[in-house]
Amino acid sequence: MKKTIHFLPDDITCEVEEGENLLTAAANAGVYIHAFCGGDGVCGKCKVIVESGQVAAGKAMNLRPEEEKQGLRLACQSTVIEDITIRIPEEIAADGRSLKRKPKTTRAISARSLDALVGKWQVAPPVEKRFLQLTPPSMDDNIPDLQRLLKGIRQRCHDCEEPTYDHPELLKRLPFILRQANWQVTVLMLRGKRAEEPDRIIAVEPGDTSGQLYGLALDIGTTTICGVLLDLNTGTVIGEASAYNDQIPCGEDIISRIIYSQRPGGLADLQAKVVATTNRVIEAVCTPRGIDPHDISYIMAAGNTTMSHLLLGLDPKFIREAPYVPTCSQFPLTRAAALGIAAHPSVRLFLYSSVASFVGGDIVAGVHACQMYKSPELTLFIDIGTNGEIVVGNEDWLVCAACSAGPAFEGGGIRHGMRASRGAIENFHIHPETLEPMIVTIGQAKPCGICGSGLISTVSELLEAGVIDQQGKFNRALDNPRVRPGLDGYEYVMVWGRDSLVGEDIVITEVDLDNLIRAKGAMYAGYETLLESVGMTFADLDRVVLAGNFGAYIDLERGICIGLLPDIAREKFFYLGNASLLGCQISLTDHVRFRERVEVSRLMTNMELAENPHFMNNYMAALFLPHTNMELFPTVRDKLLV
Amino acid sequence: MKKTIHFLPDDITCEVEEGENLLTAAANAGVYIHAFCGGDGVCGKCKVIVESGQVAAGKAMNLRPEEEKQGLRLACQSTVIEDITIRIPEEIAADGRSLKRKPKTTRAISARSLDALVGKWQVAPPVEKRFLQLTPPSMDDNIPDLQRLLKGIRQRCHDCEEPTYDHPELLKRLPFILRQANWQVTVLMLRGKRAEEPDRIIAVEPGDTSGQLYGLALDIGTTTICGVLLDLNTGTVIGEASAYNDQIPCGEDIISRIIYSQRPGGLADLQAKVVATTNRVIEAVCTPRGIDPHDISYIMAAGNTTMSHLLLGLDPKFIREAPYVPTCSQFPLTRAAALGIAAHPSVRLFLYSSVASFVGGDIVAGVHACQMYKSPELTLFIDIGTNGEIVVGNEDWLVCAACSAGPAFEGGGIRHGMRASRGAIENFHIHPETLEPMIVTIGQAKPCGICGSGLISTVSELLEAGVIDQQGKFNRALDNPRVRPGLDGYEYVMVWGRDSLVGEDIVITEVDLDNLIRAKGAMYAGYETLLESVGMTFADLDRVVLAGNFGAYIDLERGICIGLLPDIAREKFFYLGNASLLGCQISLTDHVRFRERVEVSRLMTNMELAENPHFMNNYMAALFLPHTNMELFPTVRDKLLV
Repeated sequence: MKKTIHFLPDDITCEVEEGENLLTAAANAGVYIHAFCGGDGVCGKCKVIVESGQVAAGKAMNLRPEEEKQGLRLACQSTVIEDITIRIPEEIAADGRSLKRKPKTTRAISARSLDALVGKWQVAPPVEKRFLQLTPPSMDDNIPDLQRLLKGIRQRCHDCEEPTYDHPELLKRLPFILRQANWQVTVLMLRGKRAEEPDRIIAVEPGDTSGQLYGLALDIGTTTICGVLLDLNTGTVIGEASAYNDQIPCGEDIISRIIYSQRPGGLADLQAKVVATTNRVIEAVCTPRGIDPHDISYIMAAGNTTMSHLLLGLDPKFIREAPYVPTCSQFPLTRAAALGIAAHPSVRLFLYSSVASFVGGDIVAGVHACQMYKSPELTLFIDIGTNGEIVVGNEDWLVCAACSAGPAFEGGGIRHGMRASRGAIENFHIHPETLEPMIVTIGQAKPCGICGSGLISTVSELLEAGVIDQQGKFNRALDNPRVRPGLDGYEYVMVWGRDSLVGEDIVITEVDLDNLIRAKGAMYAGYETLLESVGMTFADLDRVVLAGNFGAYIDLERGICIGLLPDIAREKFFYLGNASLLGCQISLTDHVRFRERVEVSRLMTNMELAENPHFMNNYMAALFLPHTNMELFPTVRDKLLV
Repeated sequence: MKKTIHFLPDDITCEVEEGENLLTAAANAGVYIHAFCGGDGVCGKCKVIVESGQVAAGKAMNLRPEEEKQGLRLACQSTVIEDITIRIPEEIAADGRSLKRKPKTTRAISARSLDALVGKWQVAPPVEKRFLQLTPPSMDDNIPDLQRLLKGIRQRCHDCEEPTYDHPELLKRLPFILRQANWQVTVLMLRGKRAEEPDRIIAVEPGDTSGQLYGLALDIGTTTICGVLLDLNTGTVIGEASAYNDQIPCGEDIISRIIYSQRPGGLADLQAKVVATTNRVIEAVCTPRGIDPHDISYIMAAGNTTMSHLLLGLDPKFIREAPYVPTCSQFPLTRAAALGIAAHPSVRLFLYSSVASFVGGDIVAGVHACQMYKSPELTLFIDIGTNGEIVVGNEDWLVCAACSAGPAFEGGGIRHGMRASRGAIENFHIHPETLEPMIVTIGQAKPCGICGSGLISTVSELLEAGVIDQQGKFNRALDNPRVRPGLDGYEYVMVWGRDSLVGEDIVITEVDLDNLIRAKGAMYAGYETLLESVGMTFADLDRVVLAGNFGAYIDLERGICIGLLPDIAREKFFYLGNASLLGCQISLTDHVRFRERVEVSRLMTNMELAENPHFMNNYMAALFLPHTNMELFPTVRDKLLV
């Protein structure tokens, strides 16, 4: 249930889900509150006055009795349970004047409805179960068991071709299943690849099991493997789980995984690890619901090209070496069990086709999910990460490219960078006068580093507050203890050592800023180069789709402010979230969409940016906050000139 | 090269292959020569005079010097090397008159040309190799390796659909094969199942290996596994081998194998044994020709329904239990290596579909080979054995049935019965006055038993000589030491103990005769019942095709004489030999025929004889030599009345 929060004196009203943390709610609404400890309750700075309504209080209120009586609460320890009015105490400067509060800059428009983007899909999955009551054989009718089964299937479907059937294991058990089940069985069928192809029998189960039809969507990420379990009879999600990829110790990113794969036994090791992780995810979605993993009837997966290779045991060696050639783009039909996945021996694992070495099945699945290839609207599809992937196009054409943004968005190359896990600073506001920070961490834990979304908010806030300039250099004229020279040039202290989990000051340095600028510059140059290649500009764009888990956490205004996203009308932006997983879910549920999926990858024309001179020019021009050409960023220009 | 032999005083001329044994030649020509030892050279009875020309002499001439000077030779030790005239010494009875020689009764017409029956087939196998010189990848052209390969294949074939490809093992090695071979590779392709289906890549080999394209035809028999290695570029046979099925110790016939399969581990054991035998056959055809079994590009096999089940590891349990239901009739596409066969991991093993539990893929292969389903001529196709299979039909319809003839034709239930191996009596003549035998054994070895063809000649000779009557009972009035009472009623001594390998008299008994009569009666009743079922009689038959290894050794006249074969015009008979193997060879060589093979089994309607009252009536009527209704056997009636 939604609850309303009215923040005073800023007079900002927002709606949040019941149970939301008050500090997080304020940060998301762009309301600045002093907060140093990330939400752990220890710094005791984030005091607010609850003027109307009640909040649920956490363990560490850390307030004096008279403060409690005055209605003071620690925002980070408060949970929203009803409509409330919150007043942020005014801060008084040394000279007695009330310090100016920061104006609201965060996202004006939240994620656009998924339906508007991806459309509806029908519940008519590529697999189906049919319960058959067969006539037992007699001397007058002693056709083989399989033929009897096929006949039974055909009687249920008069106009369809004779189905084909699966590998000998099915046949080996068929005579016994039929007789033990007294000729009453359920067949699991996979619809033909195309409408005119025959269906395929995947499994035969005794009795009527048609009520249990489950599908698993799998997003095989370099860092995280996510699974969604669907009831395919209704199309509803019945379980979700994710796990860090066991391959991480073998290398953080794709390139280091490929290097690892070249060790003796490395490839087999990586394959075993991705399979083990997948099995943990399957276990996690199935066990709490009492579902046997063997009852999953089909698996639809997507991953980048390297992860797809590793899952199938294909050597990714040549993906890394120019001219960057993968083994294949359309992956062979595979039985999940043959890879070691805990699944019924007959169950298929479908992997989305990739387009090129660095534009993989995860992107194809996302494009498939958002259906940009069916729309007349010109759409820019972005998945931001170490390898950023970009797709531009409409119903007539699609071009795509990968750009190597570097690991900054995943915390790599950043002094206190970290992955988006517990204790990572994910939201940051700065007081425009005191330059004091407001820190929100994932899990409201003591801060231990900065993740990608935290980095974007930090840089954007520092830029707007004039702490850094458009080249990412600190204003050396500032007299503030938080801005100081450090090992990597100047730096800003986000968290003092006493408030941090790591026990040292958490800072952001000029080297960090350089790395972030290069990363966002590569992405922006990528969009620009792709658009130019088809004679278009940002002005021609009808929609920008932000895909990927990271994309879902990017604050639109801040992303635009640093030049990571183009400065165009905000209502053109859509958050798609884990688009890869969504594509898998749609393919699991709707066989018409399922059949379209292979075509999607064929429609996408890949462009290599690595040695492209246009890209290099665009990249150089983008190494500025937000850009050297401020005509491209009118709203940011206006904001920075204020 | 053919050589002519002129036998005197019978004035019989025959043609034989150079190198033929003289005793065998005489026996086949129906020329009686005293011969007790089977051709071993020890009895020294088979003396003949070489009147013109020369024969090559064997080791044991066992003749006195004066005999040699007179031109006497032992027929069993003589090899035909040029045209010769041979005189058989006249035998003089005790009363001084020359003993009457037996008239010629053996086959008047030898096997009709295969071409007349099976037609021509083209050399355009279902698999083909294509040598490709691919352009190496570059930054401007960095499509995946597989796509490059597919593009290369398409460039060689403009009008064909994109081929599909094989299991991940091929993909795993593809990038390395392509680069090591400097992008010059040979692809092994399997043509689509139907003309409109895409081809399939089976293997990719470095360099140009298109000159080596081999196929293996396999007849998986209950007793023997035969293999023929073909050069598929030319369609020529380059090797043949056979081996006894290692399963024999688990049971002589299908039923005892099925019983064995129901023991714990029995099925796996039987599968391992048939695979081991197959591997020996592959080794034997490949090794002498320096061909690696992995270079065989495809395998086409046929076997009866039970053997097909056992090869694939399918439980044959219900084949044996009424209502006799096999698991399937069309067998799944299988990779040979997956079964344990020493073959390239990608190579397919195709198994001919079966029709019913006792009409298997071997029969379908035979029908496919002789093309009776394409001819307007009404054809009776017979494969005689423990399980006799019969097919009747033409281009419009085909009906088939199996009849359980019992093991007599394979030496089972016969006192001195044995399989057709070294030392088995395979040909027999009797002297019409002395009742002395002429024995020819397989391998010209000391006799140790009687095989099926020997049994047919023996019974037919005994019947014609009046030693037995039409009920298979011995003429008790005969005063001859070879006809005597024994344990199983009267018996005829074919070989005295001193001349036999086993050291005891080899006899044929009235019980043996009963068993043979039942076996041939079941076959004949089978033909009759099938014909009746479609409103036909023997008079309507245009052709009779004798299939199977055993069929190839049946002497036509003798087979008709005992009532195993119908008494119709001799020129209607064709010997097809191992029709199952021939079908496999044709399917290997001609993809058009290959594609037709599945259809053949669908055209065949099976009829169960086991509980059929018409069959029982016909069977009872056939328990006579040759038949109770002598109208059906006019030429035999004439012969017996002489």
